[in-house]
Amino acid sequence: MKRHAQFSKRTLLFSLPFVLFATTLLFSHCTARDSEKELTELQERALTFTQPLPDDAFLEGMNRSEELIELGKMLFYEPRLSKSGLISCNTCHNMATFGVDQLPVSVGHMWQKGPRNAPTVLNAALHTTQFWDGSEPDVESQALMPILDPLEMAATREHVLAVLGSMPEYVDFFRRVFPDEDNPLIYENVGVAIGAFERILLTYSPFDDFLRGDANALSDSQKQGLRTYIDTGCHSCHGGPALGGRTFSMFQTPAELASGESDIGRFDVTGNELDKHVFKVPSLLNIKKTYPYFHDGSEWSLHETVRVVAKDMLQQELTTTEINEIVAFLGTLTGEIPAYALELPVLPPSTPKTPRPVFD
Amino acid sequence: MKRHAQFSKRTLLFSLPFVLFATTLLFSHCTARDSEKELTELQERALTFTQPLPDDAFLEGMNRSEELIELGKMLFYEPRLSKSGLISCNTCHNMATFGVDQLPVSVGHMWQKGPRNAPTVLNAALHTTQFWDGSEPDVESQALMPILDPLEMAATREHVLAVLGSMPEYVDFFRRVFPDEDNPLIYENVGVAIGAFERILLTYSPFDDFLRGDANALSDSQKQGLRTYIDTGCHSCHGGPALGGRTFSMFQTPAELASGESDIGRFDVTGNELDKHVFKVPSLLNIKKTYPYFHDGSEWSLHETVRVVAKDMLQQELTTTEINEIVAFLGTLTGEIPAYALELPVLPPSTPKTPRPVFD
Repeated sequence: MKRHAQFSKRTLLFSLPFVLFATTLLFSHCTARDSEKELTELQERALTFTQPLPDDAFLEGMNRSEELIELGKMLFYEPRLSKSGLISCNTCHNMATFGVDQLPVSVGHMWQKGPRNAPTVLNAALHTTQFWDGSEPDVESQALMPILDPLEMAATREHVLAVLGSMPEYVDFFRRVFPDEDNPLIYENVGVAIGAFERILLTYSPFDDFLRGDANALSDSQKQGLRTYIDTGCHSCHGGPALGGRTFSMFQTPAELASGESDIGRFDVTGNELDKHVFKVPSLLNIKKTYPYFHDGSEWSLHETVRVVAKDMLQQELTTTEINEIVAFLGTLTGEIPAYALELPVLPPSTPKTPRPVFD
Repeated sequence: MKRHAQFSKRTLLFSLPFVLFATTLLFSHCTARDSEKELTELQERALTFTQPLPDDAFLEGMNRSEELIELGKMLFYEPRLSKSGLISCNTCHNMATFGVDQLPVSVGHMWQKGPRNAPTVLNAALHTTQFWDGSEPDVESQALMPILDPLEMAATREHVLAVLGSMPEYVDFFRRVFPDEDNPLIYENVGVAIGAFERILLTYSPFDDFLRGDANALSDSQKQGLRTYIDTGCHSCHGGPALGGRTFSMFQTPAELASGESDIGRFDVTGNELDKHVFKVPSLLNIKKTYPYFHDGSEWSLHETVRVVAKDMLQQELTTTEINEIVAFLGTLTGEIPAYALELPVLPPSTPKTPRPVFD
C-alpha cells in the first residue's frame, strides 16, 4: 500500500518535468530555428544524413504510460529474473557507465563469457534492428533474449513468470499496466515493459543541439571534425538519428584476422552466404564512453578504431590529424543519461513462493 | 603494523565526532521528550534498550564533506575497482534490494561463493564492529577488505590505485577531498570515502518515529509485537540504535547442526577457544528485506528465524501467535533508503592507462 502511494507520488513528480521538458524542447526548438534565420552550411550538410533525436512527442505517440516505463525500469534492474538471482539487465548494461559493461565481452551465469561485445541500451530504440546480427526487430523483443540465454541470465520463461507471480507488487503492477488483458503476466509483456523503459533512454548531446539550430553548440575543432567525418564518408553508414544502427556491413576485426577465427555474424540469422561476417553498423552516440569497440570488443582505442574502420570500410588511410578531428567530433555525441534512468528503483521483497537462486 | 597505525589515526579522527554525536543525540532526545508531554509506557520501555537513529547533526558533526560522500558513492558503484571490472560493492550490497544481494552467500570473482551471508550496508555504520566475526572496527576499514578478497573483487591495492590514478576525474576528486594530504590517492582513503558514503545510509522507519515520540507510528498489533519482543528477551541482545551489531553470541544454525559442519566464527579473529562459533549479533533494521537469514544465509523465513533464535538463544518455545506478533513488530523496522544513495553516479571514462579487466 505504501508502494502504491509511492508510485503515484512518483508519477505526479515524474509527469510535471516531462511536460515542462516537452514544452521547453518545443519552444527552444522553434526559437532556435527562428532566431537562426538560416542554418549554417555545415548544419545543412549534417541534416542530409542525420536528424535530431526525437522529442517527447515521439514517446507520447507511442502510447506508453509512465507506469509501464516504471515497471520496465524495475524489471531492467531486477536480478531475480536471472537463474542465479544475481544478474540483471543492468549488470551488462550498467547505467552508471553509459549502458555498457566496458568489457570486451560480457560475463554471465557461472562466469561464462558471451560471444560479442554488449552494445549500449542508450538510444538503442532508434536502431532499426537489435543485436549485432540484427536478429531481433525492436527493444521489446531484444530484451527477452538475454534473460533466457544460458550464457547470460540463464533463466526460463517459467522461472521469470514464477518470480514475478510470487510478488503481489509485481502482479498488481502488471494488472494496472495492462488493464485490458485477462492474463497480463506473460513473458512477452516483460519485454513490452523493459522496451518501454529503453525507449526513454535518449541522450541529448551537443551535436543534437547543433542539429536543432544552435551552430555554437560545436567548437571550431569539433566542426572541423564533422567536416572530416563527412568528407571521409563515415556518414554514409553512420547516418540516421543514432549515426548507425540502421544498416549492415561485412567486417572482420584486426584481432579476428590475426587469429584466423572470425565471427560468422548475420549468417547465423539468415543462412545467406552473403551475410557471413556481416554485422549491424553500430551507433556512434556516446561512442567515447562505450569502449571497448567492435563486435568482439577487441579494440580499446577510439583513435585506432576510427583508423581501422576508415581503412577497411572506406579504403581511406587517414592522417593522425584527420583521426584526431573525427574523434573530436565524436566527443560531441556524448549526451546526458536521463536522471530518471539513473534512479534505482526499490524492488519488492521476495515471498515464500519466489523461486530460490540457483548458482549452477 | 601498518594496519595498527592506520587504525590509531582513524580512531583519533573519529572519536571527536562520536562524542559530538553522543551529545547531539542526548540533546535531540531531550527535545523530543519535551515536545511530547509524556511518552507512553511502551515508548519508555523501548527507550531503555534502543534509541532513535541519529539525525543530520550526527553527519554534520562528523566533518564529512558532501564531496567526500559523493566520492564514496562513486567508489561504491565502481566496478573497475575489481579485477574483472565487473563487480562493485553494489553487486553484493545492491541498493535496490536494501543493501543486500538476497543470496545465501555472495558470488564473486570467477563465480566463487563467499563463506558467509552479505550483511546490509544500510545502517552498518551503527555497528560497533564490522563483518559477522567483528574483524574490522568500522565501515572505513571494512570497505577495503572485499575489494582485495580473492573470492570477492579479487583486486590488489596496486590495481585499485592504478585504476583510480588513470582517470583525471578521480585524481582531481581525491585532491579536492583530501586537500591537506601530499598524496591523497592512497588505498586507505578509498575506505575513508566509501565509509563516509556508508555513514549516510541510515533508514528512518516507523519504529524510529515511535521512539521519537509518535506513539501512533505503530499499530496496535505492532505494539503488541514490541511487547512480545521485549517480554521474550529479544532486546537483551538486539538493542542499541541498530537493534544489534554491538555484541557477540555463540550460534550454530540448524543447517550447520544438521550437516555437522559449523563456521568457526570469531575464533578466526581472536584465536580464543571461547570465540568458536561466535558471531556478531546482527542488526534487525530492515530485517524483513534482508533475507535470507543467519550467517550462512540458510533460512529464508523470518518466522522460522525468530522461532529458532528464541529457542536457541533464549530457551523460549514461542507460540505461532507470539512469532507472528514479533514479525509484525519487525516490519516496523523497515525504513526509507536515502534517495541520494539510490541515484547512480555517472562514472568517469577509462583512459589508455586504466588497467584492463582480467577475467581469470
